Amino acid sequence: MGRWEPDAESRFRAAAIELFGEVGYEQTTVAAIAERAGLTARTFFRYFADKREVLFNGSERLQQTMVDAVAQAPTDASAVDAIGAALTKVGDFFDEERRPFARLRSRVIAANTDLLERELIKMATLSAALALALRERGVGEPDASLAAEAGVAVFRVAFAQWVSEFERRGYVPIVKESLERLRSLAAS
Amino acid sequence: MGRWEPDAESRFRAAAIELFGEVGYEQTTVAAIAERAGLTARTFFRYFADKREVLFNGSERLQQTMVDAVAQAPTDASAVDAIGAALTKVGDFFDEERRPFARLRSRVIAANTDLLERELIKMATLSAALALALRERGVGEPDASLAAEAGVAVFRVAFAQWVSEFERRGYVPIVKESLERLRSLAAS
Repeated sequence: MGRWEPDAESRFRAAAIELFGEVGYEQTTVAAIAERAGLTARTFFRYFADKREVLFNGSERLQQTMVDAVAQAPTDASAVDAIGAALTKVGDFFDEERRPFARLRSRVIAANTDLLERELIKMATLSAALALALRERGVGEPDASLAAEAGVAVFRVAFAQWVSEFERRGYVPIVKESLERLRSLAAS
Repeated sequence: MGRWEPDAESRFRAAAIELFGEVGYEQTTVAAIAERAGLTARTFFRYFADKREVLFNGSERLQQTMVDAVAQAPTDASAVDAIGAALTKVGDFFDEERRPFARLRSRVIAANTDLLERELIKMATLSAALALALRERGVGEPDASLAAEAGVAVFRVAFAQWVSEFERRGYVPIVKESLERLRSLAAS
Protein backbone atom coordinates (compact mmCIF):
# COMPACT_ATOMS: atom_id res chain seq x y z
CA MET A 1 0.00 0.00 0.00
CA GLY A 2 1.69 3.20 -1.20
CA ARG A 3 1.55 6.62 0.41
CA TRP A 4 -0.88 7.86 -2.22
CA GLU A 5 -4.26 6.33 -1.56
CA PRO A 6 -7.06 7.07 -4.01
CA ASP A 7 -10.35 7.79 -2.23
CA ALA A 8 -8.62 7.78 1.17
CA GLU A 9 -10.84 10.61 2.41
CA SER A 10 -14.07 8.84 1.51
CA ARG A 11 -12.76 5.53 2.86
CA PHE A 12 -11.98 7.19 6.21
CA ARG A 13 -15.41 8.84 6.21
CA ALA A 14 -17.22 5.57 5.51
CA ALA A 15 -15.19 3.69 8.13
CA ALA A 16 -15.73 6.38 10.75
CA ILE A 17 -19.48 6.63 10.30
CA GLU A 18 -19.79 2.83 10.45
CA LEU A 19 -17.89 2.75 13.74
CA PHE A 20 -19.79 5.73 15.19
CA GLY A 21 -22.99 3.79 14.49
CA GLU A 22 -21.68 0.47 15.79
CA VAL A 23 -19.75 1.34 18.95
CA GLY A 24 -20.66 5.00 19.50
CA TYR A 25 -18.89 8.26 18.69
CA GLU A 26 -17.13 8.60 22.06
CA GLN A 27 -15.76 5.06 21.95
CA THR A 28 -14.39 5.27 18.41
CA THR A 29 -10.65 5.98 18.12
CA VAL A 30 -8.75 7.29 15.11
CA ALA A 31 -6.73 4.05 15.22
CA ALA A 32 -9.92 2.01 14.85
CA ILE A 33 -11.12 4.22 11.98
CA ALA A 34 -7.80 3.76 10.18
CA GLU A 35 -7.84 0.01 10.71
CA ARG A 36 -11.39 -0.28 9.38
CA ALA A 37 -10.44 1.82 6.35
CA GLY A 38 -7.34 -0.31 5.72
CA LEU A 39 -5.14 2.81 6.05
CA THR A 40 -2.89 4.32 8.71
CA ALA A 41 -3.68 6.83 11.44
CA ARG A 42 -0.89 8.98 10.04
CA THR A 43 -2.74 9.14 6.71
CA PHE A 44 -5.98 9.97 8.58
CA PHE A 45 -4.39 13.12 9.98
CA ARG A 46 -3.47 14.26 6.46
CA TYR A 47 -7.21 14.61 5.80
CA PHE A 48 -8.81 15.39 9.18
CA ALA A 49 -7.63 17.28 12.29
CA ASP A 50 -9.55 14.85 14.53
CA LYS A 51 -12.47 12.41 14.41
CA ARG A 52 -15.00 15.22 14.82
CA GLU A 53 -13.82 16.73 11.55
CA VAL A 54 -15.08 13.65 9.71
CA LEU A 55 -18.59 14.93 10.48
CA PHE A 56 -18.03 18.64 9.87
CA ASN A 57 -15.27 19.19 7.33
CA GLY A 58 -17.61 20.03 4.44
CA SER A 59 -19.38 22.88 6.20
CA GLU A 60 -17.12 25.75 5.07
CA ARG A 61 -17.57 24.75 1.43
CA LEU A 62 -21.34 24.46 1.93
CA GLN A 63 -21.49 27.93 3.47
CA GLN A 64 -19.32 29.48 0.75
CA THR A 65 -21.49 27.93 -1.96
CA MET A 66 -24.62 29.40 -0.35
CA VAL A 67 -23.03 32.83 0.12
CA ASP A 68 -21.88 32.86 -3.53
CA ALA A 69 -25.40 31.93 -4.66
CA VAL A 70 -26.86 34.88 -2.72
CA ALA A 71 -24.27 37.22 -4.24
CA GLN A 72 -24.98 35.92 -7.75
CA ALA A 73 -28.78 36.01 -7.57
CA PRO A 74 -30.40 38.40 -10.12
CA THR A 75 -30.31 42.04 -9.04
CA ASP A 76 -34.10 42.20 -8.87
CA ALA A 77 -34.44 39.00 -6.81
CA SER A 78 -36.05 39.55 -3.39
CA ALA A 79 -34.17 38.64 -0.21
CA VAL A 80 -36.14 35.40 0.15
CA ASP A 81 -35.65 34.55 -3.54
CA ALA A 82 -31.88 34.98 -3.11
CA ILE A 83 -31.96 32.72 -0.05
CA GLY A 84 -34.03 30.21 -2.03
CA ALA A 85 -31.34 30.21 -4.73
CA ALA A 86 -28.73 29.46 -2.05
CA LEU A 87 -30.79 26.59 -0.61
CA THR A 88 -31.20 24.87 -3.98
CA LYS A 89 -27.63 25.60 -5.14
CA VAL A 90 -26.25 23.18 -2.54
CA GLY A 91 -28.25 20.27 -3.96
CA ASP A 92 -24.99 18.81 -5.33
CA PHE A 93 -23.80 18.27 -1.76
CA PHE A 94 -26.81 16.15 -0.92
CA ASP A 95 -27.19 13.59 -3.69
CA GLU A 96 -28.38 9.97 -3.35
CA GLU A 97 -24.84 8.67 -2.91
CA ARG A 98 -24.45 10.93 0.14
CA ARG A 99 -27.78 10.10 1.80
CA PRO A 100 -26.75 6.95 3.76
CA PHE A 101 -23.79 8.85 5.27
CA ALA A 102 -26.01 11.85 6.03
CA ARG A 103 -28.59 9.62 7.75
CA LEU A 104 -26.02 8.03 10.04
CA ARG A 105 -24.37 11.40 10.65
CA SER A 106 -27.67 12.92 11.81
CA ARG A 107 -28.23 10.08 14.26
CA VAL A 108 -24.70 10.32 15.66
CA ILE A 109 -25.04 14.09 16.14
CA ALA A 110 -28.48 13.83 17.77
CA ALA A 111 -27.06 11.38 20.33
CA ASN A 112 -24.12 13.57 21.39
CA THR A 113 -24.60 16.98 23.03
CA ASP A 114 -21.15 18.28 22.07
CA LEU A 115 -21.74 17.44 18.43
CA LEU A 116 -25.22 18.94 18.54
CA GLU A 117 -23.79 22.16 19.96
CA ARG A 118 -21.16 22.22 17.22
CA GLU A 119 -23.89 21.71 14.60
CA LEU A 120 -25.98 24.55 16.08
CA ILE A 121 -22.96 26.88 16.11
CA LYS A 122 -22.38 25.96 12.45
CA MET A 123 -25.99 26.86 11.61
CA ALA A 124 -25.73 30.16 13.50
CA THR A 125 -22.52 30.97 11.60
CA LEU A 126 -24.24 30.11 8.31
CA SER A 127 -27.16 32.40 9.20
CA ALA A 128 -24.79 35.29 9.99
CA ALA A 129 -22.90 34.75 6.70
CA LEU A 130 -26.14 34.74 4.68
CA ALA A 131 -27.36 37.90 6.43
CA LEU A 132 -24.05 39.60 5.55
CA ALA A 133 -24.37 38.47 1.93
CA LEU A 134 -27.89 39.97 1.82
CA ARG A 135 -26.71 43.26 3.33
CA GLU A 136 -24.04 43.39 0.61
CA ARG A 137 -26.91 43.18 -1.91
CA GLY A 138 -28.43 46.25 -0.24
CA VAL A 139 -31.00 44.49 1.95
CA GLY A 140 -31.42 46.42 5.22
CA GLU A 141 -31.87 45.16 8.76
CA PRO A 142 -33.81 43.50 10.28
CA ASP A 143 -34.84 42.10 6.87
CA ALA A 144 -31.43 40.58 6.09
CA SER A 145 -31.24 38.74 9.41
CA LEU A 146 -34.89 37.64 9.25
CA ALA A 147 -34.56 36.27 5.71
CA ALA A 148 -31.27 34.52 6.59
CA GLU A 149 -32.68 32.98 9.79
CA ALA A 150 -35.82 31.87 7.95
CA GLY A 151 -33.63 30.37 5.23
CA VAL A 152 -31.61 28.38 7.75
CA ALA A 153 -34.90 27.27 9.37
CA VAL A 154 -36.10 25.98 5.99
CA PHE A 155 -32.74 24.29 5.41
CA ARG A 156 -32.83 22.52 8.79
CA VAL A 157 -36.40 21.29 8.39
CA ALA A 158 -35.79 20.15 4.79
CA PHE A 159 -32.53 18.43 5.70
CA ALA A 160 -34.17 16.57 8.61
CA GLN A 161 -36.87 15.44 6.17
CA TRP A 162 -34.28 14.35 3.58
CA VAL A 163 -32.44 12.11 6.08
CA SER A 164 -35.60 10.73 7.70
CA GLU A 165 -35.96 6.97 7.47
CA PHE A 166 -38.53 6.46 4.73
CA GLU A 167 -37.99 9.62 2.69
CA ARG A 168 -37.27 8.93 -0.99
CA ARG A 169 -37.54 12.39 -2.55
CA GLY A 170 -34.32 14.24 -3.24
CA TYR A 171 -33.05 17.20 -1.23
CA VAL A 172 -33.85 19.83 -3.91
CA PRO A 173 -37.59 19.08 -4.28
CA ILE A 174 -37.90 18.86 -0.48
CA VAL A 175 -36.19 22.20 0.16
CA LYS A 176 -38.21 23.90 -2.59
CA GLU A 177 -41.43 22.55 -1.09
CA SER A 178 -40.38 23.64 2.41
CA LEU A 179 -39.72 27.19 1.23
CA GLU A 180 -43.11 27.29 -0.50
CA ARG A 181 -44.77 25.93 2.66
CA LEU A 182 -43.15 28.67 4.73
CA ARG A 183 -44.31 31.29 2.23
CA SER A 184 -47.89 30.08 2.41
CA LEU A 185 -47.79 29.74 6.22
CA ALA A 186 -46.55 33.31 6.50
CA ALA A 187 -49.30 34.53 4.18
CA SER A 188 -52.14 32.83 6.11
CA MET B 1 -28.57 39.83 58.29
CA GLY B 2 -31.14 37.07 58.72
CA ARG B 3 -31.46 33.88 56.71
CA TRP B 4 -34.49 35.21 54.87
CA GLU B 5 -33.33 37.82 52.41
CA PRO B 6 -35.94 39.71 50.41
CA ASP B 7 -34.89 40.12 46.78
CA ALA B 8 -31.91 37.82 47.29
CA GLU B 9 -32.37 36.30 43.84
CA SER B 10 -32.39 39.65 42.07
CA ARG B 11 -29.47 40.90 44.18
CA PHE B 12 -27.42 37.86 43.17
CA ARG B 13 -28.41 38.36 39.55
CA ALA B 14 -27.43 42.03 39.57
CA ALA B 15 -24.12 41.30 41.33
CA ALA B 16 -23.27 38.45 38.96
CA ILE B 17 -23.95 40.37 35.78
CA GLU B 18 -21.89 43.32 37.05
CA LEU B 19 -18.94 41.04 37.76
CA PHE B 20 -19.30 39.15 34.45
CA GLY B 21 -19.06 42.53 32.73
CA GLU B 22 -16.18 43.83 34.87
CA VAL B 23 -13.82 40.86 35.22
CA GLY B 24 -15.25 38.34 32.74
CA TYR B 25 -17.55 35.34 33.14
CA GLU B 26 -14.76 32.77 33.52
CA GLN B 27 -12.97 34.79 36.21
CA THR B 28 -16.06 35.41 38.34
CA THR B 29 -16.50 33.08 41.33
CA VAL B 30 -19.67 32.41 43.31
CA ALA B 31 -17.83 33.76 46.38
CA ALA B 32 -17.25 37.07 44.59
CA ILE B 33 -20.90 37.23 43.46
CA ALA B 34 -22.07 36.63 47.04
CA GLU B 35 -19.71 39.26 48.41
CA ARG B 36 -20.86 41.86 45.89
CA ALA B 37 -24.48 41.05 46.72
CA GLY B 38 -23.80 41.32 50.47
CA LEU B 39 -25.00 37.74 50.94
CA THR B 40 -23.37 34.35 51.46
CA ALA B 41 -22.34 31.70 48.91
CA ARG B 42 -24.54 29.26 50.82
CA THR B 43 -27.55 31.46 50.17
CA PHE B 44 -26.52 31.71 46.48
CA PHE B 45 -26.86 27.95 46.11
CA ARG B 46 -30.40 28.10 47.44
CA TYR B 47 -31.32 30.02 44.29
CA PHE B 48 -28.90 28.83 41.59
CA ALA B 49 -27.15 25.50 40.90
CA ASP B 50 -24.08 27.35 39.61
CA LYS B 51 -23.06 30.72 38.17
CA ARG B 52 -24.25 29.73 34.69
CA GLU B 53 -27.78 29.37 36.04
CA VAL B 54 -27.84 33.11 36.78
CA LEU B 55 -27.98 33.61 33.01
CA PHE B 56 -30.36 30.79 32.12
CA ASN B 57 -32.71 30.03 35.01
CA GLY B 58 -35.72 31.82 33.51
CA SER B 59 -35.75 29.83 30.28
CA GLU B 60 -38.09 27.01 31.33
CA ARG B 61 -40.72 29.53 32.43
CA LEU B 62 -40.29 31.47 29.19
CA GLN B 63 -40.76 28.30 27.15
CA GLN B 64 -43.79 27.18 29.15
CA THR B 65 -45.42 30.59 28.74
CA MET B 66 -44.93 30.41 24.96
CA VAL B 67 -46.21 26.83 24.74
CA ASP B 68 -49.31 27.75 26.78
CA ALA B 69 -49.97 30.72 24.50
CA VAL B 70 -49.86 28.45 21.42
CA ALA B 71 -52.27 26.00 23.10
CA GLN B 72 -54.64 28.82 24.08
CA ALA B 73 -54.70 30.62 20.72
CA PRO B 74 -58.18 30.73 19.09
CA THR B 75 -59.12 27.49 17.31
CA ASP B 76 -59.20 29.23 13.95
CA ALA B 77 -55.80 30.93 14.38
CA SER B 78 -53.24 29.91 11.76
CA ALA B 79 -49.95 28.30 12.82
CA VAL B 80 -48.08 31.58 12.39
CA ASP B 81 -50.79 33.52 14.25
CA ALA B 82 -50.48 31.08 17.19
CA ILE B 83 -46.70 31.54 17.16
CA GLY B 84 -47.21 35.32 17.03
CA ALA B 85 -49.41 35.08 20.14
CA ALA B 86 -46.60 33.18 21.91
CA LEU B 87 -43.99 35.77 20.92
CA THR B 88 -46.02 38.70 22.28
CA LYS B 89 -47.23 36.81 25.37
CA VAL B 90 -43.70 36.83 26.81
CA GLY B 91 -43.52 40.62 26.75
CA ASP B 92 -43.82 40.62 30.54
CA PHE B 93 -40.43 38.91 30.74
CA PHE B 94 -38.76 41.69 28.82
CA ASP B 95 -39.83 44.96 30.36
CA GLU B 96 -37.76 48.13 30.77
CA GLU B 97 -36.52 47.11 34.20
CA ARG B 98 -35.06 43.96 32.71
CA ARG B 99 -33.35 45.58 29.71
CA PRO B 100 -30.02 46.58 31.34
CA PHE B 101 -29.57 42.99 32.62
CA ALA B 102 -30.56 41.57 29.25
CA ARG B 103 -28.05 43.83 27.46
CA LEU B 104 -25.16 42.75 29.67
CA ARG B 105 -26.29 39.11 29.48
CA SER B 106 -26.21 39.19 25.67
CA ARG B 107 -22.68 40.58 25.67
CA VAL B 108 -21.46 38.00 28.19
CA ILE B 109 -22.97 35.15 26.18
CA ALA B 110 -21.62 36.42 22.86
CA ALA B 111 -18.09 36.46 24.35
CA ASN B 112 -18.15 32.86 25.65
CA THR B 113 -18.52 29.86 23.32
CA ASP B 114 -19.86 27.52 26.03
CA LEU B 115 -22.58 29.99 26.93
CA LEU B 116 -23.41 30.60 23.28
CA GLU B 117 -23.78 26.85 22.73
CA ARG B 118 -26.05 26.62 25.76
CA GLU B 119 -28.14 29.49 24.41
CA LEU B 120 -28.43 27.82 21.00
CA ILE B 121 -29.46 24.50 22.59
CA LYS B 122 -32.09 26.43 24.55
CA MET B 123 -33.43 27.98 21.34
CA ALA B 124 -33.49 24.56 19.60
CA THR B 125 -35.39 23.13 22.58
CA LEU B 126 -37.85 26.03 22.43
CA SER B 127 -38.39 25.44 18.71
CA ALA B 128 -39.09 21.72 19.29
CA ALA B 129 -41.54 22.55 22.11
CA LEU B 130 -43.41 25.06 19.93
CA ALA B 131 -43.58 22.58 17.04
CA LEU B 132 -45.06 19.98 19.41
CA ALA B 133 -47.62 22.51 20.68
CA LEU B 134 -48.62 23.24 17.07
CA ARG B 135 -48.97 19.53 16.24
CA GLU B 136 -51.23 19.21 19.27
CA ARG B 137 -53.42 21.89 17.65
CA GLY B 138 -53.63 19.67 14.55
CA VAL B 139 -50.96 21.39 12.45
CA GLY B 140 -49.17 18.78 10.31
CA GLU B 141 -45.49 18.45 9.43
CA PRO B 142 -43.42 20.05 8.01
CA ASP B 143 -45.69 23.06 8.72
CA ALA B 144 -45.43 22.79 12.51
CA SER B 145 -41.62 22.69 12.47
CA LEU B 146 -41.36 25.44 9.85
CA ALA B 147 -43.68 27.78 11.75
CA ALA B 148 -41.89 27.04 15.04
CA GLU B 149 -38.42 27.57 13.55
CA ALA B 150 -39.57 30.77 11.86
CA GLY B 151 -41.03 31.93 15.18
CA VAL B 152 -37.76 31.34 17.00
CA ALA B 153 -35.96 33.16 14.17
CA VAL B 154 -38.25 36.17 14.67
CA PHE B 155 -37.74 35.97 18.44
CA ARG B 156 -33.93 35.91 18.11
CA VAL B 157 -33.80 38.81 15.68
CA ALA B 158 -36.28 40.87 17.74
CA PHE B 159 -34.49 40.11 20.99
CA ALA B 160 -31.11 41.13 19.52
CA GLN B 161 -32.74 44.37 18.39
CA TRP B 162 -34.30 44.97 21.83
CA VAL B 163 -30.93 44.66 23.61
CA SER B 164 -28.97 46.61 21.00
CA GLU B 165 -27.25 49.70 22.32
CA PHE B 166 -29.45 52.56 21.12
CA GLU B 167 -32.80 50.77 20.88
CA ARG B 168 -35.57 52.47 22.86
CA ARG B 169 -38.69 50.67 21.65
CA GLY B 170 -40.10 47.92 23.85
CA TYR B 171 -39.84 44.20 23.10
CA VAL B 172 -43.51 43.78 22.09
CA PRO B 173 -43.62 46.39 19.30
CA ILE B 174 -40.25 45.13 18.02
CA VAL B 175 -41.33 41.48 17.89
CA LYS B 176 -44.64 42.40 16.24
CA GLU B 177 -42.81 44.41 13.62
CA SER B 178 -40.31 41.59 13.03
CA LEU B 179 -43.10 39.08 12.44
CA GLU B 180 -44.80 41.47 10.00
CA ARG B 181 -41.46 42.02 8.22
CA LEU B 182 -41.00 38.26 7.86
CA ARG B 183 -44.55 37.94 6.49
CA SER B 184 -43.95 40.60 3.88
CA LEU B 185 -40.50 39.22 2.98
CA ALA B 186 -42.02 35.77 2.47
CA ALA B 187 -44.75 37.24 0.28
CA SER B 188 -42.38 39.15 -2.01
